[in-house]
Amino acid sequence: MAHADLINVHFDPHFITRKTPITEGKVALISGGGSGHEPMHVGFVGKGMLDAACPGEVFTSPSPDQMFEAAKAVHSGAGVLNIVKNYTGDIMNFEMAAEMMMSEGIQVQNLIVDDDIAVKDSFYTAGRRGVGTTVLIEKICGGAAEDGYDLKELSRLCRKVNQNGRSMGMALTSCISPANGKPSFDIGNDEMELGIGIHGEPGIDREKIKTVDEITEMMTTSIIDDPTYSRELKEWSFEKEEWVHVNMENESFKKGDQVIAFVNSMGGTPVSELYCVYRKMAEVLEDKGIKIVRNLIGPYITSLEMQGCSITLLKVDDEILKYWDAPVHTSSLRKGI
Amino acid sequence: MAHADLINVHFDPHFITRKTPITEGKVALISGGGSGHEPMHVGFVGKGMLDAACPGEVFTSPSPDQMFEAAKAVHSGAGVLNIVKNYTGDIMNFEMAAEMMMSEGIQVQNLIVDDDIAVKDSFYTAGRRGVGTTVLIEKICGGAAEDGYDLKELSRLCRKVNQNGRSMGMALTSCISPANGKPSFDIGNDEMELGIGIHGEPGIDREKIKTVDEITEMMTTSIIDDPTYSRELKEWSFEKEEWVHVNMENESFKKGDQVIAFVNSMGGTPVSELYCVYRKMAEVLEDKGIKIVRNLIGPYITSLEMQGCSITLLKVDDEILKYWDAPVHTSSLRKGI
Repeated sequence: MAHADLINVHFDPHFITRKTPITEGKVALISGGGSGHEPMHVGFVGKGMLDAACPGEVFTSPSPDQMFEAAKAVHSGAGVLNIVKNYTGDIMNFEMAAEMMMSEGIQVQNLIVDDDIAVKDSFYTAGRRGVGTTVLIEKICGGAAEDGYDLKELSRLCRKVNQNGRSMGMALTSCISPANGKPSFDIGNDEMELGIGIHGEPGIDREKIKTVDEITEMMTTSIIDDPTYSRELKEWSFEKEEWVHVNMENESFKKGDQVIAFVNSMGGTPVSELYCVYRKMAEVLEDKGIKIVRNLIGPYITSLEMQGCSITLLKVDDEILKYWDAPVHTSSLRKGI
Repeated sequence: MAHADLINVHFDPHFITRKTPITEGKVALISGGGSGHEPMHVGFVGKGMLDAACPGEVFTSPSPDQMFEAAKAVHSGAGVLNIVKNYTGDIMNFEMAAEMMMSEGIQVQNLIVDDDIAVKDSFYTAGRRGVGTTVLIEKICGGAAEDGYDLKELSRLCRKVNQNGRSMGMALTSCISPANGKPSFDIGNDEMELGIGIHGEPGIDREKIKTVDEITEMMTTSIIDDPTYSRELKEWSFEKEEWVHVNMENESFKKGDQVIAFVNSMGGTPVSELYCVYRKMAEVLEDKGIKIVRNLIGPYITSLEMQGCSITLLKVDDEILKYWDAPVHTSSLRKGI
């Protein structure tokens, strides 16, 4: 209703598609996940970003039929790239959806975002969770898809962005999921949860609240000092026609790196406080010889009304920067159009 | 630091100016007010909107020297339009600043925004408070100034937008001003404050919390049913060379009106909830025969981390719509550039 000029909403099953016509031969970009993280992903549907988004119930994966119907609606013969945050339910359902798409002759690739340095393995996930880098991947791959990248090239770029991105979050309050009407965890007025997930999953530490400078320094340093991290991610192999495990490695940040710095609100933290975080983060990065070349500041991947923030750092090269700067017109991110 | 490509920050006194060069002969557009309402006004400095913003301490008017120095920095000989929200301190300080500007030979006009239908007279204000319409005025007058309106024409447009706009807000929680570290008022978990101001000033009613549909219907109906409202506002008369009182009249909304509908977060309410408000508001407007032709949804005029929202309806004509749609490039509002 609010963005009828930009998107179409489909029901039974529920998915959102962009209204701007998709160029013939353009790879379709689809994402999805539980609701409650708005504007991600529905706010990122439009020219230069996603072609479709599939929202599940609050904090619950969407179902394969949503993704399947979305793919049928937006693919134009050049294949589909599904951007999947690393949560067990999302992975499982996007894999089923990929097989349904392939059975219809649609070429498909599922790529996983797993950028949260705080926690490895949790109630929701095996391995690291997918958080802030997702927003950046959707923008960058959206720009490249619009520019004519084929599925293979787009997959390479998507993997690269995931390998270059790292995030960490923290919260001052819980959020209340509408389904149960209660805070997802209890936290004192004088406490904070470091390394929190976007569903309110526990982080690495519950501490007495600190100043914004102390919190920001802790988070920024943790991201920069996170060692080189290797793991295997499951992908479809077109050659072998089966699911295979592909090695992925995030190299540690180093002096001289150029980054996109993304300071995100968990939903209930106002932008004025995000700028306080940004200031301290920028100081820490300058001390470490890491240069911020672009930034994003605001509520982009949230947990309902949770108070808190996250920091994402993405190491860039010319290709990543080119597509970060490309025009985009969605309800929640817009430039150049 | 975050938006060094868009704005320059000046200290002693403190004001922000746009980096994009100002066309010779363009009227300079300046606003300002207490901090704590971000992104207003600093987030609206840039091409197509404000030329300068003057932030005071949190919830405290900026001082005349800030406005005076800002005017000297951005005026280009075509005069200055100061957009002033109707709070006693802001009015007084902008009047003193206007006199300082005139003493330097700068032609100046102060125009007042007083769109909040909830409360007439309060601790902060005589008459209605200036709230959401301010954001719309800054965008619309910014577009017209960029298009070459002279000070007289721009003042006429600014008055028209204020006469066509009405707002109402509500809150579920208080906010905590950093200076005193305590909530500005107490409110129960099961209560809401209807008609709240942007500094947490009391509204018209403290009630038990209701559903989003009930709250939205109450607010939307109150705005639509607000009767035609006349008052005198103090303006500078170029002819008489003195301050005079000018009659302003907001006509009541009626069937067939076309509006920009603005659903605003008070800072701590996530965008997902704003869309729930938007849906119900759109239904109520449709029932009343009022057509939404444009919208704005998000945190634009906030009260720190306060949970709550406000609705602003602005009756439009072709001129208002033209400049609403004009390109703008600021850190918090961007299109077409």
